[in-house]
Amino acid sequence: MQRLLLGGACLAAGAGLGASLCGFLTEPRRGGPERLGLLARVPVVPVPSVQASELTVHPGGSGAVMKYGFPSLANIKTRESYVTSYDPRTRTASWVIEQLSPASLTGPSDRKYCDFKEDNSVHVYHRANNADYRGSGFDRGHLAAAANHKWSQKAMEETFYLSNVAPQDPQLNQNSWNNLEKLCRSLTRHYLNVFVCTGPLYLPRQEADGKLYVRYQVLGRNHVAVPTHFFKVVILERAGGGGVELRSYVLPNAPVDEKIPLERFLVPIETIERASGLLFVPNIMKRANSLQAITAK
Amino acid sequence: MQRLLLGGACLAAGAGLGASLCGFLTEPRRGGPERLGLLARVPVVPVPSVQASELTVHPGGSGAVMKYGFPSLANIKTRESYVTSYDPRTRTASWVIEQLSPASLTGPSDRKYCDFKEDNSVHVYHRANNADYRGSGFDRGHLAAAANHKWSQKAMEETFYLSNVAPQDPQLNQNSWNNLEKLCRSLTRHYLNVFVCTGPLYLPRQEADGKLYVRYQVLGRNHVAVPTHFFKVVILERAGGGGVELRSYVLPNAPVDEKIPLERFLVPIETIERASGLLFVPNIMKRANSLQAITAK
Repeated sequence: MQRLLLGGACLAAGAGLGASLCGFLTEPRRGGPERLGLLARVPVVPVPSVQASELTVHPGGSGAVMKYGFPSLANIKTRESYVTSYDPRTRTASWVIEQLSPASLTGPSDRKYCDFKEDNSVHVYHRANNADYRGSGFDRGHLAAAANHKWSQKAMEETFYLSNVAPQDPQLNQNSWNNLEKLCRSLTRHYLNVFVCTGPLYLPRQEADGKLYVRYQVLGRNHVAVPTHFFKVVILERAGGGGVELRSYVLPNAPVDEKIPLERFLVPIETIERASGLLFVPNIMKRANSLQAITAK
Repeated sequence: MQRLLLGGACLAAGAGLGASLCGFLTEPRRGGPERLGLLARVPVVPVPSVQASELTVHPGGSGAVMKYGFPSLANIKTRESYVTSYDPRTRTASWVIEQLSPASLTGPSDRKYCDFKEDNSVHVYHRANNADYRGSGFDRGHLAAAANHKWSQKAMEETFYLSNVAPQDPQLNQNSWNNLEKLCRSLTRHYLNVFVCTGPLYLPRQEADGKLYVRYQVLGRNHVAVPTHFFKVVILERAGGGGVELRSYVLPNAPVDEKIPLERFLVPIETIERASGLLFVPNIMKRANSLQAITAK
């Protein structure tokens, strides 16, 4: 059997954790004491609680999305509903950050008036179009979800740019991934501010020769990359100066049994940082002295 | 047989050219009228000759490397001998630009005093180290070549940062690629200014299921990407207001018979632009009104 490896995950926390993590991602239903041991050992940064600066939650203020910095600075695009970094080689985003709030989640917008469209702000050599996806067997999976931006028709429409989309397994998109998006929305009821950063991963896998290879399909005439996995990093500001909580998920771009609890897909943030080439924690630490990394409930 | 596809190459110039190009890259020795037809049809931008601004050739002036802009703006690092854009996901550069001149090619520097070294300016999660390469079977292939920067020991040493290096097939590195580097150096005798931009490519290949996949090995604990191909884009300023000439090469990261003439590896610049996610021509056109794309002698 081929074994999936998260970039540097095995490195990060020793062979035991690595092996568990790798198994965890390929066989999410496997349970047992090793897993529990792994999750119990996940590092939590112990810092005295410091008042996180309060931020007025107002939909449409994409500037507020910058509060905890950006995970990289390449090809930044700012939209009504999100900020994104575009990867011209893979023809999809490196990451998309959005801010969710009860106000952004409600409104008269309707996705039936929205159509997926090319992003003309990207050079024609490096952009996906609808024809690339047609007949591919993959959904056009939103990175910033449409339903997060009901407050404005324009904001919702902007989530339909193909630069905010990646080829996604339909079963994943319509079930577990959709549930993860719903979970993110539900967090707005419990936290002062909710920031969500979503992106693709291209993870190596051990092949029969014992070596590690990254392998991913590309679609259509523009060779749109099909990610092997997707990540979602959720930055949660607690009310009352309770500090910042981080939840980081990795799901395979493949059918996932909806019965598997989403917390099974929590991973240490370092795993995503190593695999993606992005950095989250240093920027967050500059702005919030209290950070708790949540990797299991 | 698996067929190699350059990103968008087939798209660029119709199915006939595409098919030729794909064959060209996998079977560089195949000749015949189809190839000649392809090369003859390569677009040459016909513009009235305009005096390209003269630039004093002085070693050490990495600012001068900017003359024709950069192919992307992510993670730029400026060194004595080159300017580079780093890709933290693949742990190697996206591109490296250097300026070659008779003055930069001569001097007392000696590579026996140089050692390959980690680039500490890159976050530890995203950088290669020497252990990643050890026992891998791949050379640490310079992108900006050491022998191009004999004018200063420091400039030469800076070419030994592993951020200026990618895993390269030893037979390629020591033969045809070395010859291409020598060719670039020899051009300094015939042109006013010589700029060389080098980088990795990760090209898709058709697999047995008829679909296209990008597949590349990753090395060591840091998962350093092994490019499937390398490109070199040479920007040549003619003396006497003769305009700018562009030569763009793609070589597979595999053993290449040294007897194959290097001009067999010339490709249209658009092929590299599509596959790499970079742009060369728009920037050059802003600065030089006369551009001739050379794809065959």
